[in-house]
Amino acid sequence: MYLEKIQCENDIKKIPRDKLPELAREIREFLIEKISVTGGHLGSNLGAVELTMALHLFLDLPTDKIVWDVGHQSYTHKLLTGRRDGFDTLRKYGGMAGFPKRAESNCDSFNTGHSSTSISAGLGLVKARDLMGEKHTVVSVIGDGSLTGGMAYEALNNASKLETNFIVVLNDNNMSISENVGGVSKYLNGIRTADSYLDLKESIFTKLMNIPGGEGVVKTIRKTKSTLKSMVIPGMFFEDMGITYLGPVNGHDIGAILELLNDAKRKKGPVLVHVITQKGKGYEPAERHPARFHGTEPFVIETGLPSTPRTKANYTDVFSTVMMKLGDRNPEVVAITAAMADGTGLKRFRNVFPERFFDVGIAEEHAVTFAAGLAAGGLKPVVCIYSSFLQRAYDQILHDVCIQNLPVVFAIDRAGVVGSDGETHQGIFDISYLSTIPNMTIMAPKNKWELSDMMKFAVSYDGPIAIRYPRGTAYDGLEEYRAPIAYGESELIYRGSDIALIALGSMMPTAEKVRDELEADGVDVTLVNARFAKPIDEDMLKSVMRVHRMIVIMEENVGTGGYGERCREFLDEAGYTGKVITVNIPDEYVEHGNVDILKKVIGIDKDSVLAKIRRFM
Amino acid sequence: MYLEKIQCENDIKKIPRDKLPELAREIREFLIEKISVTGGHLGSNLGAVELTMALHLFLDLPTDKIVWDVGHQSYTHKLLTGRRDGFDTLRKYGGMAGFPKRAESNCDSFNTGHSSTSISAGLGLVKARDLMGEKHTVVSVIGDGSLTGGMAYEALNNASKLETNFIVVLNDNNMSISENVGGVSKYLNGIRTADSYLDLKESIFTKLMNIPGGEGVVKTIRKTKSTLKSMVIPGMFFEDMGITYLGPVNGHDIGAILELLNDAKRKKGPVLVHVITQKGKGYEPAERHPARFHGTEPFVIETGLPSTPRTKANYTDVFSTVMMKLGDRNPEVVAITAAMADGTGLKRFRNVFPERFFDVGIAEEHAVTFAAGLAAGGLKPVVCIYSSFLQRAYDQILHDVCIQNLPVVFAIDRAGVVGSDGETHQGIFDISYLSTIPNMTIMAPKNKWELSDMMKFAVSYDGPIAIRYPRGTAYDGLEEYRAPIAYGESELIYRGSDIALIALGSMMPTAEKVRDELEADGVDVTLVNARFAKPIDEDMLKSVMRVHRMIVIMEENVGTGGYGERCREFLDEAGYTGKVITVNIPDEYVEHGNVDILKKVIGIDKDSVLAKIRRFM
Repeated sequence: MYLEKIQCENDIKKIPRDKLPELAREIREFLIEKISVTGGHLGSNLGAVELTMALHLFLDLPTDKIVWDVGHQSYTHKLLTGRRDGFDTLRKYGGMAGFPKRAESNCDSFNTGHSSTSISAGLGLVKARDLMGEKHTVVSVIGDGSLTGGMAYEALNNASKLETNFIVVLNDNNMSISENVGGVSKYLNGIRTADSYLDLKESIFTKLMNIPGGEGVVKTIRKTKSTLKSMVIPGMFFEDMGITYLGPVNGHDIGAILELLNDAKRKKGPVLVHVITQKGKGYEPAERHPARFHGTEPFVIETGLPSTPRTKANYTDVFSTVMMKLGDRNPEVVAITAAMADGTGLKRFRNVFPERFFDVGIAEEHAVTFAAGLAAGGLKPVVCIYSSFLQRAYDQILHDVCIQNLPVVFAIDRAGVVGSDGETHQGIFDISYLSTIPNMTIMAPKNKWELSDMMKFAVSYDGPIAIRYPRGTAYDGLEEYRAPIAYGESELIYRGSDIALIALGSMMPTAEKVRDELEADGVDVTLVNARFAKPIDEDMLKSVMRVHRMIVIMEENVGTGGYGERCREFLDEAGYTGKVITVNIPDEYVEHGNVDILKKVIGIDKDSVLAKIRRFM
Repeated sequence: MYLEKIQCENDIKKIPRDKLPELAREIREFLIEKISVTGGHLGSNLGAVELTMALHLFLDLPTDKIVWDVGHQSYTHKLLTGRRDGFDTLRKYGGMAGFPKRAESNCDSFNTGHSSTSISAGLGLVKARDLMGEKHTVVSVIGDGSLTGGMAYEALNNASKLETNFIVVLNDNNMSISENVGGVSKYLNGIRTADSYLDLKESIFTKLMNIPGGEGVVKTIRKTKSTLKSMVIPGMFFEDMGITYLGPVNGHDIGAILELLNDAKRKKGPVLVHVITQKGKGYEPAERHPARFHGTEPFVIETGLPSTPRTKANYTDVFSTVMMKLGDRNPEVVAITAAMADGTGLKRFRNVFPERFFDVGIAEEHAVTFAAGLAAGGLKPVVCIYSSFLQRAYDQILHDVCIQNLPVVFAIDRAGVVGSDGETHQGIFDISYLSTIPNMTIMAPKNKWELSDMMKFAVSYDGPIAIRYPRGTAYDGLEEYRAPIAYGESELIYRGSDIALIALGSMMPTAEKVRDELEADGVDVTLVNARFAKPIDEDMLKSVMRVHRMIVIMEENVGTGGYGERCREFLDEAGYTGKVITVNIPDEYVEHGNVDILKKVIGIDKDSVLAKIRRFM
């Protein structure tokens, strides 16, 4: 067992070179075993085993720095830096994070989670190094999927001026989470399959050399400056930007990667090292189903199937189904995803309406403005992006969609506490940032039927409109409450007289439980399904404030700029003299862990809400 | 006068071809004359005269669509679509906008203002066209500066899959507002000055053709697929992405541009037409000082100098000066701009500390994450970005800076109502969107001395911190009030007992006037300088609520998620029973026009505030 010999960073250097393949095998076995129990990111980690080993052999940690783009592929890095025990608590509350964290290890030089940030951050570390007179090596590791994000290009463009060393490793598995898309992908694919092209280059040179006088031509080409030289070098796309390109190299050949990294270190300026890896490498189910094993629930190693199969539909399934209906009935409905056809449930829509489906790559900004263009052209685009990723398109929503009041539907999945992915992925800001935007409407469904009804309402609405819904099982309570959706109107579930609970979307099940307990204590409780986070239902608030001595407003979003704050403002302005309690997420980042635990920690579970209410009763 | 013959779109087609240069001359004269009176964007418009004329000759408006990136270069387009009279009210309240507006003309197909959106929007219009079975032409016109924005690259990457026609005109003047930067700029420059390269290509081909057997090699090259073909075509950077490249062409030669556009229209798929223009063309002062004439105040045509020279410093000047001091005293202070060295006042810092100054191009996302990297590497970055452009980096602030609690200083210029640039440029959301972010601190200075003090405080603070300050003259009242800045603490200016005015930053001069009028009526008014928008000063609020029957909270920001909303929440929670009035910007976009007029319209001027207060007194 070589893995046991690795207690901290740089220990890998003590393993005999010829035993490294054995270590790689052990790492894969370890990862499969651990992740089969905890769940986590598997495919990308299996693909990056040798690349990570090579980087650890090449670098001197923690003096040298690695920035992992997205960071979901950093498990081998965690293993090689003494965090083996952490895998038993991977992504659990208080346990090891699924992404790099400076607070977790001094070998993690920059926190990541969202895509395409690593070159920007790495360039910052490089410039800091140079200005402070330090000499260490900085490596950013970015996937070909992350390279479709505009930020990565902004950073490459900026890096081109650099005159000191900066190594960008392109970990190219020809995948985002699903297959990769777009021009750069096609281009990389061209390099990957460029044997024929390289042959062709060679054959032209050979032909030239065999022609009398041809030698001179070859010499002319060889001695000219970059433009012409890059004509005969793969990677000229990067060379054009002033980035030295090295590769491609087999990403499962440690020696070959090391050789290229050592070459790269000798260059002044930015160097891109192109490493070809296979997602899921070494575990057959993951090789066959890379999208499914990108992020996986616990699974049975032998079969690759989930340990506990899902029995209930989640909100993504519900969205997926209603999109099929909407696509069928409304030829103007088109769907847009940013590299998440699987995760968003749009795969079915894609299969049936391929010409009305757009996967734009990991490019949320473009996704939104592209949707604005589609809407300006007369279509009804539904943009489905996870809450925390939609943060990237704040300006595009504000500037390109809402100023022109264009009818774009935002289907915001993973809104609320997402759990094990942790603080970079919590979808707890969307109500606040979307509420700042004029012309925007925001809805949240109380249960699965309401998500369908809201989607139908949204595509018939003539303006920007968002629906946020949480990760996980779709609530199937309150089936009998299905009043038609009317713009800006809430839905009365139970009429009481003492305390009014106003629950937005995912807080409904909690609100019901709170109500049950209060009723058991003899308190007469009104329960309102808010439905709209923006605009707030002023008529409902007016009627509720006339009757109740306490109003409790509940949302799964930060308090600052949220729904509750605006309701409170209205009630205060309207002269309400009773007690207003807002239940929401405090002004802190929410760590990784089980959703139910997290809700307790941040005080939005049943017991916390009850305690808050009883304090003022 | 040919210009007089142009009453609406397509009228240009009636002008004899040989008179077009005369028309171009008249347009330039007209623009210089009008803008010298109203102010506005001059340089980019003078550069785009012939390009716009060619587009109008080429297209059939309004059926065909043009999307103008940023849109500040659309003046000739406005002239050629019957809006000549609008130039007398250009950028004035109720008058013609300085940017394209669908509400203004059916020849404006998409509203713009921020950079790098046009390819995304254009691609949306193209896809809508195709799905709706229409046949018109869509052209996006983007500058080489805008091409440094990541969104443009995301859109090009996505467009590469397109199988129908889409024309992207690259209007290349080798400038953003200042000189352009980065790898792509270098690359474009390579093409521009590629005569020698083209000659070289020709000479290689000629040599080959003259060699026995060489003809075969040339044929081999010519018949191979794109990769090799692009080796001998300028623009292979674009060809690599699957975009057909045409050009470069002289952007002041209407016939040549037309020829290329007609070629472009025949292509299936996306085509990039590379047009070389000169910013400021035809007006010597603008040719010599392109940055100054990018957006100009009214000026004297003969000299190019401002009609009414500034006598008082504006906040940008104050920031510029304090940055020099900070740079001098703190070797770890570095400065970052996104293509705005002039506008932000960082030019002086650049000149004295070139190695500590970074212009990253129009790339706000990268700017912020790059700053996070610099901070993680031990430096103290000051990122200076206008309020409305910083919207683009919301996710990067939240995800890359604030999760890691990195000490990045955000100097937010143009915060508040900016005036004539209008709704796309108003800096009225920053308090709201920044307040949603944990670990963020937000300040706003009451006057010019306080901006200096706050900057000094910010660079000594160990965490993310923002200072917002408005466009225009720096307030120089209240010089005698200069209590040291303490974290989270407001400053008491006048102690009264009836009404408390709490003014944040730019609202101070208004608050003073309001106080004067109330005092004249015998009301005893407290005046507080809020200083911090986040965190709110709870001690101050507690002490104020004990004494005053009314508390008025004033900010130049939208109400939703703003400072006032949070203060009100605190006061409500603390049991304040007096009246709270929040003064802020309503939930609507704010049009272009004179700042004083706009403040009246949106109800944050002295009279509106007084009226609001008196209603409840």
